[in-house]
Order: sequence, then structure tokens, then C-alpha cells
Amino acid sequence: MSKPLYGLVEAGGTKFVLGIAHGPDEVLATTRIPTTTPDETIAAMCNWLAGQGPLVAVGVATFGPVEVDRTSLQWGHILATPKAGWSNTNLVGPLVQRLGCPVGLDTDVTAAALAEYRWGAGQGQPSVLYFTIGTGVGGGAVIGGKPLAGISHPEMGHIRLPLHPEDVGFGGVCPFHGTCLEGLASGPAVKARYGVSLSELPGDHIGHDVVAWYIAQAAVTAQAMFEPGRIVLGGGVMDTPGLIDRVRCTAERLGNGYFRSRAGEIVTLPGLGDRSGLLGALALAEAALR
Amino acid sequence: MSKPLYGLVEAGGTKFVLGIAHGPDEVLATTRIPTTTPDETIAAMCNWLAGQGPLVAVGVATFGPVEVDRTSLQWGHILATPKAGWSNTNLVGPLVQRLGCPVGLDTDVTAAALAEYRWGAGQGQPSVLYFTIGTGVGGGAVIGGKPLAGISHPEMGHIRLPLHPEDVGFGGVCPFHGTCLEGLASGPAVKARYGVSLSELPGDHIGHDVVAWYIAQAAVTAQAMFEPGRIVLGGGVMDTPGLIDRVRCTAERLGNGYFRSRAGEIVTLPGLGDRSGLLGALALAEAALR
Repeated sequence: MSKPLYGLVEAGGTKFVLGIAHGPDEVLATTRIPTTTPDETIAAMCNWLAGQGPLVAVGVATFGPVEVDRTSLQWGHILATPKAGWSNTNLVGPLVQRLGCPVGLDTDVTAAALAEYRWGAGQGQPSVLYFTIGTGVGGGAVIGGKPLAGISHPEMGHIRLPLHPEDVGFGGVCPFHGTCLEGLASGPAVKARYGVSLSELPGDHIGHDVVAWYIAQAAVTAQAMFEPGRIVLGGGVMDTPGLIDRVRCTAERLGNGYFRSRAGEIVTLPGLGDRSGLLGALALAEAALR
Repeated sequence: MSKPLYGLVEAGGTKFVLGIAHGPDEVLATTRIPTTTPDETIAAMCNWLAGQGPLVAVGVATFGPVEVDRTSLQWGHILATPKAGWSNTNLVGPLVQRLGCPVGLDTDVTAAALAEYRWGAGQGQPSVLYFTIGTGVGGGAVIGGKPLAGISHPEMGHIRLPLHPEDVGFGGVCPFHGTCLEGLASGPAVKARYGVSLSELPGDHIGHDVVAWYIAQAAVTAQAMFEPGRIVLGGGVMDTPGLIDRVRCTAERLGNGYFRSRAGEIVTLPGLGDRSGLLGALALAEAALR
């Protein structure tokens, strides 16, 4: 009996990463297609996957907002988004129609949390949060092995935070909330203040402390709200050398020994590196088959 | 066949409320005992419950921090607490020994969330958060019908918040975090600023706006982290006339239309009034029997 072959989709605002895999250690092929119009991008996605042979299931880890409620008629649709042309786009329907197999879908960050829970830094933990700190900031959670959703998926990038004393006066870049986590710690927020990315700043620049402080505030808020087993921090900004250690130290200091978990232990980089997203799609595909 | 009789314990720092019930609409008797020493208080609790006839199960909704992990040897123990003499107190053991029936236990706020989910303002919702805003501030959650816990129960009262522009300079009353939610919006935080409780302030006093703003920040943070179906606000501070409407309006404004849920719809007073805690104990007792 041949091993089941899964189709993987990591749908982002600038590119779609596609793949096929037997399992987390057997990703057989991947490709990238640019995110252009929905019609063009979705056709290219379906064509590539259909050409890889019979798939038992497909997992889609997507940018949001997206309808994650399987009982909704809108399930699998991108909801109102500033990304031109993509509001109300059905990501799942064309895959089901073309490939005739079960499809699982969640946000990219919830999928990454699932991958880290199953195969990465969150293995064996009662709950795992995953934040991406990049061009945008988002977060997802897996609790008791299940993706967290309420009446929709979380929007963890949009928690409002106190301003760092050295950052007072900065209004943040989030068009909705100004000084929320995304408005303060995303890549564009760093560039808006300092003109360059965090890794381009000198190592002794205050910007390192400021950005670490905001990410640490988010981590401590996550501790208070969930007391999770792991808080995994991914995304381009987290590639900055030394940042994870600054975040850990600052979060320890902010928590001040109050929480059961120690930030220095539970705050971590992805165990799967930059594969969290695509392997999240694999986890969603496997779940869709069950 | 006679209806099952449940024992209910709402364990607080100043008093224990005890009760027996067949169900949420059939609470047959309640009593209050002062919280003195653990030995004295626990003996009085066991005596009263034992005198009520055979109980099929007991539910304990308690102040924290408390070990909620049933697989831990410390399960049901109050953990390190500033309340003199109560650290490492076993709440569950004496009940099991004396009454010989299953015991369920969780924090008072998680129990209240469970009661609101089952019989109150959160019925039919995918997830329900319950905050108490009183002498202390805490929060709990029920997700997919299950109490939320990670490596411990949440400590939602200790999220740090931005300061209200009219409140800059106030350092908060939380000995651990200063200006966290508890440090800014608890009863003692109100008295530290204004000398009286919120309901004793004139209706046009800025304190109403300031406190509502902090509670609204917490509600919006909860929206971002969970997108819950309901955020239930209980506790003595919420008895202030007009406060819930101020919180709703402010939360709508702070969220700025970004979240899927509307704060004006999901932020609510307890559907069970001041019975959330004791009926939470009932929900825990029922769960212990299953």
C-alpha cells in the first residue's frame, strides 16, 4: 500500500507556496506562485496540485481574515480584506471541485501553531501559541490539540500595548489601532521609526530594546490570558540576531515572577524554522482526512 | 428515583459560600462561613455539606492560584498565596475523604464562565470569557464547552494596559505589575485614586470614563486573543450604574470595526447575576460526575 500523498497550500499576500508531502519529514516537492488576481492565482494553484498525482487531502494555511467555521456557507472564503480583489474569494471550493478530496483550512498562524504542536517546539504541551512578527503581525493557538476559534479566528496582532518610555510620541502604523502590537512591532513599524529593518540597526541601538519590549508585552499578555505551554515567535523580524533573548529577558522582568510559567522557558523560536507554515498546511490536510 | 443532590462550594478569601442543589433552578439551601484558618474553614465546610444528606458530587469554585491539573499530585491545592496560612492548602482531599464522592474544582472565574456558558449569557456560544472586576480582577474562559487551562489556569487580571490620558502618573495598585488591569480597574485601584468606590462618585466624574476605558481595553484584548462569543463582566465594580454601557461604547471605539464580533453585542453583564459563582460550582460538580 502506497503512502498517502497530501497537498499543501500556504496562501500569502505576495506569494502562494505549494507542496506535496507524505509527512513532515517527506515533503517531496514545493513551488511558489505569485499572488496576483484570485482567478489567476487559484487556477495556477489547482493546476500545480492536480499535476502531482492523486492527493488524499489538501491543507490550506492562509492569510486572513478568512471564514474558518466549517458550518458556514462562507467557509474557506477570504473575508473583507484591503488586498485588492480578494475580498469574498473562495479558496476551498475550487480545490474540492478540481481535486475531489477533503480540504482543511485555517489561518497561517493557527496552522503554524498546529505544526509546532505536532512536530516542533510545542510537542506534548497542553497549549501552544504562535505569533508571526513580520510585515504583519498575527497569532494563533492550539489548545488541547485543537485550533482555537470563537466566532472567528483570533486577531492577536491587534492587542493594544503601553508605549515604551523611549517610544512615546510614535503613533504606530496600524490604520485601525495605531499603537497595537502590529502597529508597534511589525517590520513596517520598525522602518517607520528607524528607516531600516531591525537587523540593519547597530547592535546597541535603542530600537532593539523598544521592539523587544513590545513583543515581550505581547508574550506576557499571552501568558496571562492562556498560561500556555509554549509561545512560539516566528516571522522575519524574529530573524534579528539576539532578539529572542531580549524578548525572553524582558518578558521575565515584566511578568515579575507572577505567572506559573517562566517566560525564559516557554518563549521560543519555531522548532520547525521557516517550515511551520507549510507543515501547518500538512497538519490541516491530515486533520481533514480524519 | 430521587433527583441527584450536588454539593456546591464557592471558596473566597473572605467567605466560603456553600450550597446544595438538584440543578440550576433548584438550589435548596445555602450558607456562608467566614474564611479564617484553613483547618477551621475546611472543617466547617465539610461538616455543613456532610449534614445535608448524601451528595453525588461536589463542585469547588475557588480563589487562586490553585492547581487545576487533575493529573498533578497537588491537584486541588491552593498554591503560593499572600493569604496568610493558605499556601499549599488541600481543598479537595478533605472533601473526598469526608463525603466519599467525586469532586470537581476550578477557579471561581472559570467556574463562572462555565455557568454562564451552560445556563446564562453564554448559552450556545463557541467560547465564553468571564471577568470579575472587584476587590481583585480575574478572568476565565470556556472554549468548546471546556474550561481553558494551559500549564495552569489563566491570570487574566494581570494584563498590562496603556494608561488613560487623564490617568497618567497613577502607578496602579498591583504589587507585581503596577498598571495591569487589576492594578488599574479593581475596587482598591478606584479607591486609591478617588477615595471612594466608583458608584459613590458623581455621575459626571472622569473616574467613570477612566475605569470604563481600562475594562474596555481588557475586553478588546480578549476579542483579539479569542474572538469569543461572549465576554461576561461580573464583580462588584460592574454594579456601578451605567458602567456596562460605557464599557461597550468604549470597546466599540477602541476596536474600530476591526474584529468580527461587535463589542456592543458580545460584552455583557452576567445572565445569572450574582449566582454565576455558585452555579459554576454546580457545573463543576456535574462535570465531575460524568
